[in-house]
Amino acid sequence: MNLDNSFRVGIAGLGTVGRGVVRTLQKNRELLRKRVGRELAVVAVCARSRSKERGIALDAYEWEADPARLAARPDIDAFVELMGGEDGDAKRSVEAAIGNGKHVVTANKALLAVHGHALAEAAEQQSVALRFEAAVAGGIPVIKALGESLAGDRITRVVGVLNGTCNYILTRMEKNEASYPEIFSEAQSLGYLEADPTLDVGGIDAAHKLALLASLAYGTRVDFGNVDIEGIERISLRDIEQTRDMGYRVKLLCVARMSEEGLEQRTQPCLVPRYSTVGRIDGATNIVLLEGEATGQISLQGPGAGEGPTATAVVGDIVGIARGSAGTTFGQPAATLVSAPPARSAVPVPYYLRLSLRDEPGAFAEIALALAWANVSIDRIRQYAHATEAAPVIIVTHATTRARLDRALDEIRRSEVSLREPVSIRIEEI
Amino acid sequence: MNLDNSFRVGIAGLGTVGRGVVRTLQKNRELLRKRVGRELAVVAVCARSRSKERGIALDAYEWEADPARLAARPDIDAFVELMGGEDGDAKRSVEAAIGNGKHVVTANKALLAVHGHALAEAAEQQSVALRFEAAVAGGIPVIKALGESLAGDRITRVVGVLNGTCNYILTRMEKNEASYPEIFSEAQSLGYLEADPTLDVGGIDAAHKLALLASLAYGTRVDFGNVDIEGIERISLRDIEQTRDMGYRVKLLCVARMSEEGLEQRTQPCLVPRYSTVGRIDGATNIVLLEGEATGQISLQGPGAGEGPTATAVVGDIVGIARGSAGTTFGQPAATLVSAPPARSAVPVPYYLRLSLRDEPGAFAEIALALAWANVSIDRIRQYAHATEAAPVIIVTHATTRARLDRALDEIRRSEVSLREPVSIRIEEI
Repeated sequence: MNLDNSFRVGIAGLGTVGRGVVRTLQKNRELLRKRVGRELAVVAVCARSRSKERGIALDAYEWEADPARLAARPDIDAFVELMGGEDGDAKRSVEAAIGNGKHVVTANKALLAVHGHALAEAAEQQSVALRFEAAVAGGIPVIKALGESLAGDRITRVVGVLNGTCNYILTRMEKNEASYPEIFSEAQSLGYLEADPTLDVGGIDAAHKLALLASLAYGTRVDFGNVDIEGIERISLRDIEQTRDMGYRVKLLCVARMSEEGLEQRTQPCLVPRYSTVGRIDGATNIVLLEGEATGQISLQGPGAGEGPTATAVVGDIVGIARGSAGTTFGQPAATLVSAPPARSAVPVPYYLRLSLRDEPGAFAEIALALAWANVSIDRIRQYAHATEAAPVIIVTHATTRARLDRALDEIRRSEVSLREPVSIRIEEI
Repeated sequence: MNLDNSFRVGIAGLGTVGRGVVRTLQKNRELLRKRVGRELAVVAVCARSRSKERGIALDAYEWEADPARLAARPDIDAFVELMGGEDGDAKRSVEAAIGNGKHVVTANKALLAVHGHALAEAAEQQSVALRFEAAVAGGIPVIKALGESLAGDRITRVVGVLNGTCNYILTRMEKNEASYPEIFSEAQSLGYLEADPTLDVGGIDAAHKLALLASLAYGTRVDFGNVDIEGIERISLRDIEQTRDMGYRVKLLCVARMSEEGLEQRTQPCLVPRYSTVGRIDGATNIVLLEGEATGQISLQGPGAGEGPTATAVVGDIVGIARGSAGTTFGQPAATLVSAPPARSAVPVPYYLRLSLRDEPGAFAEIALALAWANVSIDRIRQYAHATEAAPVIIVTHATTRARLDRALDEIRRSEVSLREPVSIRIEEI
């Protein structure tokens, strides 16, 4: 059945990424044959609609209506899952592929963030590869960098801007001086948002990716359930403008760090210095900083999504398997991955606070006392001219722990001079 | 002899990198055992002096006086060559290792730039791996990114700042407003320069690295002999200051690009926009931009040298081989690599020119006519106040070909109003 020694793949899902993978395999067929040493052949495909016009020739491939049937075909070596979704068809078909001894390549961060450990164990039992470079940061080879290139080092911190949509929205708010709801509507009408937009703007998509990076970096079981997640919905144009004046930009940061207390995994809007490597990232670009004890800091930057970059990542994984590259899913045998207790960040950092205070004598003194009581000291203060009874006050604290800050915020909330819920944004040192 | 299934290495060369590799293998022994699934064991080492104090424990290892004997030991699986040099011991021992069926990991760009093709052919005949991540850009995993992650894409351009010493010197000249000879002496006294400093400042080290990247990117035989090389010796403080005022910085750029004419490989000082990703690189940091048809532009940045980063890259290669990763040396079987004719850059770009003109009526008109005659058009002109008879004139041209510019420069050289050799620097679009 496979007389010519080709490496045969079945592709499930023909959306943007699936179409890109078919296109790449067709267009670069000769190049790939040289680079792999054998032909990469598409045998069969599967998608929701057979009749949809996709601008690619599919006639030479078998069509399967059920992705799990495709995954089990005796004439494929690898199953390429590009449907998405943490359960349903994606999970069922990846399990079918592994159960039938097929290698799996997927771009599905949700599936792996939730079921990655079980799938990795199953793949290793069956001695098949499960690869997911395209699931994190599109065309940026961060999975390979962490799991292979840096395998000799102890990772001290991983920092990423991993959701292009959020970064696009924040960049647009800043440049157009438009509010979050305005830019959100714009992004939605342009088709930039997921069907369920909270996946993007709520930070969930970025958190999925962070959970995968943390597992690779620290030899821990993927633990999406313990990622501290906060989206960008509460970031106002006022915060963007005022922090910019102070030399910062707002980024939805993903941070993973291991300490004696356990594994810290955070996805939250943070301030970063405007002229730092991360602070300069615009639009849909992704960036990942990998920090190692011996290596120092490496930064990888590029397009985090889109047909071309993501398809290249998928094909890179197929190439690796076809060349015979061995290796586990999360950088070491799944059975040796440990469960780390979740930990909150214990490193003191400065915070930006925006308060709305009653415009009356003693109001600011009351806030200053609340901060002093919680042992939070003030670095900078700005109060702006205002026409209303609410006086906008910006405070940047000196480095303090989250626990102290929370005590101060509770005290401020209780105060009668505070007219609105105080806004606090962590200032990340990078 | 190897009852415990460990992966056994012999290390030749215990300078900065060799010491770092031994330290990493010792310190991260348990971590590596988990990540590889077997022990990485040092069996024997070799260096010029046995008695030298290196701050690492070597008692547990056999000592070999001759690296080629080390390479041939029946009790090693991989030979790690960290001596350097394009011939001599390095070449002899790597050949011995391959001949004896040992895998090879090396950080030696000179060896591979000159003999890489023959060594790759020999390694593939013997079915052993020859890996060299540490040879280019230290801790930045660019070899893996090009050869594996981007294997599915057609590379359109590779741009790098690959010599930390040159970038350090240029950065120091700019920040200290000191001349090239002053900063060169400083770097030399700090031990930053190779024994033969022309390897660094003459651009040869960077060109070695570029030749390796070009082979991986374009499926061509390593062709160091056809890299156009120009060092940073002729860059004056005046050029740095004047180009900075115009929004540029000087970088020793490595550029590889394939066109219908052939393979362009250039290592030369270029101007890049001050606020571009490459323009922001300071000191000894390296950066590589990989541009692919489908992927767009990826940028990888980090420490380009030093014990920790380079040792991590070496150990990453050892890990890959010990895990059983297959693959060729230059991204495809050496026998299928082609010889591309060398080509000069045909893309028109702007140039910066610095001229010294006789301070007399009609001098500038003569230069303007020379440029017009060669069909080079002027974008910007600056003439500075001067106390001497030589008037310093800066010209930025519109985009033009190198051939046209050379005609204009020849004409200017012949002119009596031109008092010194004109300086020209390419402005690279990135």
